[in-house]
Amino acid sequence: MSDPVVAAKKDAGIRAANMVEDGMIVGLGTGSTVFFAMERLGERIKTEGLRILGVPTSNQTAMRAEEYGIPLTTLTLHPVLDLAIDGADQVDPKKQMIKGRGAAHLREKVVADAAKQFVVVIDSGKEVTGLDAAVPIEVLPFAYGSVAKKLRELGGEPVMREGVKKDGPVISDNGNYVVDCAFGAIADPAGLEAAINRIPGVLGNGIFAAMTAKTVVIVGGKR
Amino acid sequence: MSDPVVAAKKDAGIRAANMVEDGMIVGLGTGSTVFFAMERLGERIKTEGLRILGVPTSNQTAMRAEEYGIPLTTLTLHPVLDLAIDGADQVDPKKQMIKGRGAAHLREKVVADAAKQFVVVIDSGKEVTGLDAAVPIEVLPFAYGSVAKKLRELGGEPVMREGVKKDGPVISDNGNYVVDCAFGAIADPAGLEAAINRIPGVLGNGIFAAMTAKTVVIVGGKR
Amino acid sequence: MSDPVVAAKKDAGIRAANMVEDGMIVGLGTGSTVFFAMERLGERIKTEGLRILGVPTSNQTAMRAEEYGIPLTTLTLHPVLDLAIDGADQVDPKKQMIKGRGAAHLREKVVADAAKQFVVVIDSGKEVTGLDAAVPIEVLPFAYGSVAKKLRELGGEPVMREGVKKDGPVISDNGNYVVDCAFGAIADPAGLEAAINRIPGVLGNGIFAAMTAKTVVIVGGKR
Amino acid sequence: MSDPVVAAKKDAGIRAANMVEDGMIVGLGTGSTVFFAMERLGERIKTEGLRILGVPTSNQTAMRAEEYGIPLTTLTLHPVLDLAIDGADQVDPKKQMIKGRGAAHLREKVVADAAKQFVVVIDSGKEVTGLDAAVPIEVLPFAYGSVAKKLRELGGEPVMREGVKKDGPVISDNGNYVVDCAFGAIADPAGLEAAINRIPGVLGNGIFAAMTAKTVVIVGGKR
Repeated sequence: MSDPVVAAKKDAGIRAANMVEDGMIVGLGTGSTVFFAMERLGERIKTEGLRILGVPTSNQTAMRAEEYGIPLTTLTLHPVLDLAIDGADQVDPKKQMIKGRGAAHLREKVVADAAKQFVVVIDSGKEVTGLDAAVPIEVLPFAYGSVAKKLRELGGEPVMREGVKKDGPVISDNGNYVVDCAFGAIADPAGLEAAINRIPGVLGNGIFAAMTAKTVVIVGGKR
Repeated sequence: MSDPVVAAKKDAGIRAANMVEDGMIVGLGTGSTVFFAMERLGERIKTEGLRILGVPTSNQTAMRAEEYGIPLTTLTLHPVLDLAIDGADQVDPKKQMIKGRGAAHLREKVVADAAKQFVVVIDSGKEVTGLDAAVPIEVLPFAYGSVAKKLRELGGEPVMREGVKKDGPVISDNGNYVVDCAFGAIADPAGLEAAINRIPGVLGNGIFAAMTAKTVVIVGGKR
Repeated sequence: MSDPVVAAKKDAGIRAANMVEDGMIVGLGTGSTVFFAMERLGERIKTEGLRILGVPTSNQTAMRAEEYGIPLTTLTLHPVLDLAIDGADQVDPKKQMIKGRGAAHLREKVVADAAKQFVVVIDSGKEVTGLDAAVPIEVLPFAYGSVAKKLRELGGEPVMREGVKKDGPVISDNGNYVVDCAFGAIADPAGLEAAINRIPGVLGNGIFAAMTAKTVVIVGGKR
Repeated sequence: MSDPVVAAKKDAGIRAANMVEDGMIVGLGTGSTVFFAMERLGERIKTEGLRILGVPTSNQTAMRAEEYGIPLTTLTLHPVLDLAIDGADQVDPKKQMIKGRGAAHLREKVVADAAKQFVVVIDSGKEVTGLDAAVPIEVLPFAYGSVAKKLRELGGEPVMREGVKKDGPVISDNGNYVVDCAFGAIADPAGLEAAINRIPGVLGNGIFAAMTAKTVVIVGGKR
């Protein structure tokens, strides 16, 4: 735990987990910082008798929840979540974000949207003055060609995310492609988020600019 | 062929097929009227040597294309289509439409969007003065609960489409649920189309109000 | 409840639910008779404080479990089930079965296979002297053509199951096709089950002939 | 091209492509050696006017076929293929193989099975005296826990294949998990292939031991 980045992630995760109150329905994001939060939630369940139900955003998170002893539920039974905890790849001063390096951002946006409060846990390396990372976009495989063309018309440079231990494209947990689309510095994240969503065949995109009002950002190791 | 509705569908299909020119890339919708168009295209391929490539919107259409001898391609190779032919469930005087009774509307919208010209083939029973049918909406199964809640907040009454020869929900060719959401008379189809699309977990919706400029409506049996 | 078939289904469901003991992990099949069992399990949870966890075989069953207050888990966390309850379309005197009218038989076979005891709940209309129903077979869409050909070589007559409120094929909860394949009277169910499974592209089939030793059949209204 | 392994792959690919005759329906596997064969087929189409139709085993191969100008068809239209070309990860002296490093082996086995002749193209590094690689197994996500347990009972050590540019498991083109299961030296490949296939929830496995009679192995750089 001497690695300062790991320490910061763990700190952020623990602080988020400590915000959870008894009886809450909690959205559980995907990625290493979130797993620190989930580990802490598991401890609180055992030691404090904390009663919560989690809604996982990925197969990986569901498996981890089971390891940590966090009981799971679904949005069908609980369409409103009290709080969601998730990481991010870039966060700007207005709490606008880019997510999706782990290809779980479609379900992550659903869960964040369903939550009353969205708690984002990051280390300081994710803080930026302006968003400029390539935007991960989940695309219906059938529509890849026409979506790529429309993204170019929006000024982007779409690149199919290729698998490493799988020939051909990475496939999301939902069975779709992921396109990483660089736009350079993004002047208007909310506008770009909406413009990308208007393309038929786009199923979700990694810009989170429409839920800043309910977002709390916790930067690990920083108060 | 004495049934006047079938005769009207066939007339519409044949007239659409006759608009196709040699060398075109043609989007192929789903449903009985489109299949009349495809049957005619198959005839033209055999008798005139018409050279076209089709992009099918469903598994069913792909099978029919193979029967009629229409060679297929994909949007990956041809991201721009010259013309798309499809049916509709309701069409208003401004050429705004509701589609999706056959649960193929997500791919149908991708194909219509990719086409320079969108030819809609209907019988006169599909003409309405104002759209008021339930809107078919393709939904990520994970997000069903939260999407249904948001649709109610928009004034809709979402109903899961249930399978008939399958227990539980109808599953689309893309592996998702279909929700039929009644809104009564739809005053602003373009606004509602956009509002539904903004809900995370909505993958596509059956309102087609953003492409009226390039739409041609052919009503069978009527000139 | 005056309908004798419904009464028999309810009787079978209740008797199966009464076999469940505190602390069990229970596989939950799909269909109306199983739902009577689940309703009874929900009552026992409320009135007796019965503590169980269910593993659902379909999206529909998961929704029903949530309605009845049955907490759910997964095979990942519990790869061995104490007991599974499910229906059947035909059951012969040796407790060999055909299942799959509801297109959920792939997951149903996984769950039955994972269970120490398999409790089949039926009304007397499902009892036959010999299996002869068409066998529901889940098929990878890519492989439909070659699988159909191989099924014909085995003496079957494969028919694609067509959707009713969906154009084209019924799609299973797993995203695949369902082929109903008539073989006439099936002399050797275990042999046919194995032969069908050997065809590449077959993902599951509705003959259940390999788990008769652990199967208990409850016929509603009959002791 | 000075890399001897690349040169061997290219040699194997070209020799396989030269076996293809005018009018053939050709199965197209996935991977670098197959792509050399496809490049050569594209040349022959352009220079000789070779008329063939290809059936691709993956999204990646479909994209490559379009680049090389190889027209595609499906098993629905052509359930019997004249010849299939594919690579392998290990090939023993009896022409038994392990495939699936690229996670495309379910469709690859369907295509190989549908072909009259199966041409395997490898470099000499893939030749082994006995199969001992971990066996890639495509698994229904729902069934991961129970399938892993059954694989251990067969003497295997199942490891979920984890994504690299995707959090959590690799997802196949068919939407499923891939488990790599080491069995040490495999004494009876045909028996193990059948035993794995009997586990409910296994959708395909990477042992190819049932089609040696129609298999031709081409080792690049070796005559």
